[in-house]
Amino acid sequence: MDIASPNFENVGPFTRAWEWLKALPVKLWAMAVEFANKMKKLGQDDPRRIIHSLKVGVAITLVSLFYYVRQLFDRFGENGIWAILTVVLVFEFSVGATLGKGLNRMLATLSAGALAVGVDQVATLFDGTGQPIVLGIFVFIISATVTFMRFFPALKARYDYGLMIFILTFCLVSVSSYQDAEVLEIAYERLYTIIIGSFIAIIVCICVCPVWIGETLQNQIANNLEKLGNFLEGFGKEYFRLSEEGHSTDDKSFLHGYKSVLTSKDKEETMANLARWELWHYRFGFRHPWNRYLKVGTLTRQCAYKLEDLNGYLNCFEIQATPTEFRREIQEPCIQICSESGKALKELASAIKKMRRSTLVNSHIDSSKLAAKNLQSMLNNSLWENANLREIIPTAAVGLVLINIVPCTEKIVEAFQELASRARFKRMDDRVSPNNDV
Amino acid sequence: MDIASPNFENVGPFTRAWEWLKALPVKLWAMAVEFANKMKKLGQDDPRRIIHSLKVGVAITLVSLFYYVRQLFDRFGENGIWAILTVVLVFEFSVGATLGKGLNRMLATLSAGALAVGVDQVATLFDGTGQPIVLGIFVFIISATVTFMRFFPALKARYDYGLMIFILTFCLVSVSSYQDAEVLEIAYERLYTIIIGSFIAIIVCICVCPVWIGETLQNQIANNLEKLGNFLEGFGKEYFRLSEEGHSTDDKSFLHGYKSVLTSKDKEETMANLARWELWHYRFGFRHPWNRYLKVGTLTRQCAYKLEDLNGYLNCFEIQATPTEFRREIQEPCIQICSESGKALKELASAIKKMRRSTLVNSHIDSSKLAAKNLQSMLNNSLWENANLREIIPTAAVGLVLINIVPCTEKIVEAFQELASRARFKRMDDRVSPNNDV
Repeated sequence: MDIASPNFENVGPFTRAWEWLKALPVKLWAMAVEFANKMKKLGQDDPRRIIHSLKVGVAITLVSLFYYVRQLFDRFGENGIWAILTVVLVFEFSVGATLGKGLNRMLATLSAGALAVGVDQVATLFDGTGQPIVLGIFVFIISATVTFMRFFPALKARYDYGLMIFILTFCLVSVSSYQDAEVLEIAYERLYTIIIGSFIAIIVCICVCPVWIGETLQNQIANNLEKLGNFLEGFGKEYFRLSEEGHSTDDKSFLHGYKSVLTSKDKEETMANLARWELWHYRFGFRHPWNRYLKVGTLTRQCAYKLEDLNGYLNCFEIQATPTEFRREIQEPCIQICSESGKALKELASAIKKMRRSTLVNSHIDSSKLAAKNLQSMLNNSLWENANLREIIPTAAVGLVLINIVPCTEKIVEAFQELASRARFKRMDDRVSPNNDV
Repeated sequence: MDIASPNFENVGPFTRAWEWLKALPVKLWAMAVEFANKMKKLGQDDPRRIIHSLKVGVAITLVSLFYYVRQLFDRFGENGIWAILTVVLVFEFSVGATLGKGLNRMLATLSAGALAVGVDQVATLFDGTGQPIVLGIFVFIISATVTFMRFFPALKARYDYGLMIFILTFCLVSVSSYQDAEVLEIAYERLYTIIIGSFIAIIVCICVCPVWIGETLQNQIANNLEKLGNFLEGFGKEYFRLSEEGHSTDDKSFLHGYKSVLTSKDKEETMANLARWELWHYRFGFRHPWNRYLKVGTLTRQCAYKLEDLNGYLNCFEIQATPTEFRREIQEPCIQICSESGKALKELASAIKKMRRSTLVNSHIDSSKLAAKNLQSMLNNSLWENANLREIIPTAAVGLVLINIVPCTEKIVEAFQELASRARFKRMDDRVSPNNDV
């Protein structure tokens, strides 16, 4: 925006302010256009975001009928506000998160309401001044204890929201009970409006284009494996200069894909925690072994650390030189390891996506183990006369990392097989039926 | 608990149930003891958790005075409930999180309330049936748009809670306005009770043993650097078997400390986002460069990936053998790199904790660069006659990784120096004054 920033140095403050004001509409317009473009891009990147926003709008409009429709308002009165509040707070992007929050909220309201009614009974045993003191002591003890319980890692992972709502409801009901005698009614009204709100949120979330976080986790784990596989396959060609002879070298995005795997831990754990709430998904069913996905994810990450290492050798200046004799010598088993491990990982990725077992993967692993053994014996037995360490060492180091990648891949396969048996993945024999490829 | 699980196979269901019931008190008691022990451990691990729980109890008891004290209740009435709700929802473990939520909540309530009042003015232009339709359309459009805006990464990081409260307040006020004519009063009451609640939460959070998330982030970044330094120093001794000659080898915890650094990204980013809310911390002041800490953290993580690699070589079976001639040959520069880089990282850690610059670190870096140069020329120039690659390669690979660690450390030092100049860290000359060591 050149017009927006002319040279102000020799003009007075008034002129400067005027120029700034004159430029303001143009600036604002540019900002608005940029904002609109960003919004458009966000929507294009993942159209589910647009659908989610519309779903939230629909759910809130639905629940606000409690106010707009005379008959409903006469029945529920101003308590309908809790239902609106619940929809806004509970409605999340994925089914798992919405279910988790909804169930947490309902159970916490139920139990905290019951406790508050009980505490109110105790407090009524005391006279005028004693009553608020007893209530205050209970509020203090219970809110401090439950706040402390929120630090338990196991509770925090799945019930954090519920514990917060427990404190909230207990305080609301028991505090209101002091000024309003009908404590049971307060607790009851809060409970059923929250149940109505939660159900509206959950039903809209599940019935209109649902986003299952379990599917997202499964895809993420599979995509991570695929990224690693792509890197390995690409690395072999790139490092041993096969690409110069063959096809182009310009698209090297596959060499950076694995980087996102390095820091995927927290996201995967959050997703697994949310996926546990999706009890009745048509593909996963009840008690799907989400922990096993995390195991595969952890091993994938450990493999990614080794790729980070390989990537370092790729950028190292020694590699820029033409391939040495030694490199050509060990080229074959190295490329074999890269391509077979890469294929194994990509086969696993596809098997996870299709939820079927894989027998192909074992043959890839066997080939890569054989290649690793060859490479190891090459490195072990060769007595290199007049060997120039400068030429040998970087390449040999790459060879060592590749040898280490083979047991790494094997561990991933083992973890996958455990997952496949726990999650009852289909056997390969069933693969002929077309609907397994969904 | 042997008594809890006797052999039930040859008894009827009634006996089984009776045995189970008899064992129940013992089981429950065992669970209660385990729970109490876990609670005790949680509190011992970080006593700030206990203090936080008590603080929440105090804040909620304070705000519930709005109900218990007759004069206050007469003034605020049942709207006091919003203040209690606000304290429960806004009070977080760290000052940054509490401030962030409190400010978000207040600003969002103010702006959404104003918008809802405006929308209500538009809706009153329509007659009986038109009014709820116009209100419904506005509620739909605004809730869908703001929900979509929550996907913007920049908004999500700092204003996610505010956007949710914006939707909430807008819906509450504009929906209630249909049945209750005094929309301005609703908006105004909601606003001031939320302001009171937020202020009580913020004041208790800051005045009673505050937990500054900025300090936590700074410590975490420094501790991570220290873990890396410990590993490097320990690795040199461990790999080259110096420890056999010198002190004991039993405590090897330093060799695993770095592992937590590998997956620290998300936590650091969250902390930096929250730290930005702590505008008036006595040490950091306004506009502390939290981004620079993240930069140091990212580079630390990249260094940690290389340590993961080194750790792999430590566990490799070749290393179990007695040191070879070649290993003894390159031992000196390797140990030099380890100890100098380790010292540099630990010096940085201490400098970050004390918020001062460091001149010592440059001399460590210079020494490690010199050692890396020596090692490189050793690896480059030696022509090893009758060299057994099996013996040489793993050690040489370790040497290569160590050489790569030096520029990695250098980058961390550069990032630190940028941080030090942006955050106006004290110069070393000031170090004589004792209160800099706080």
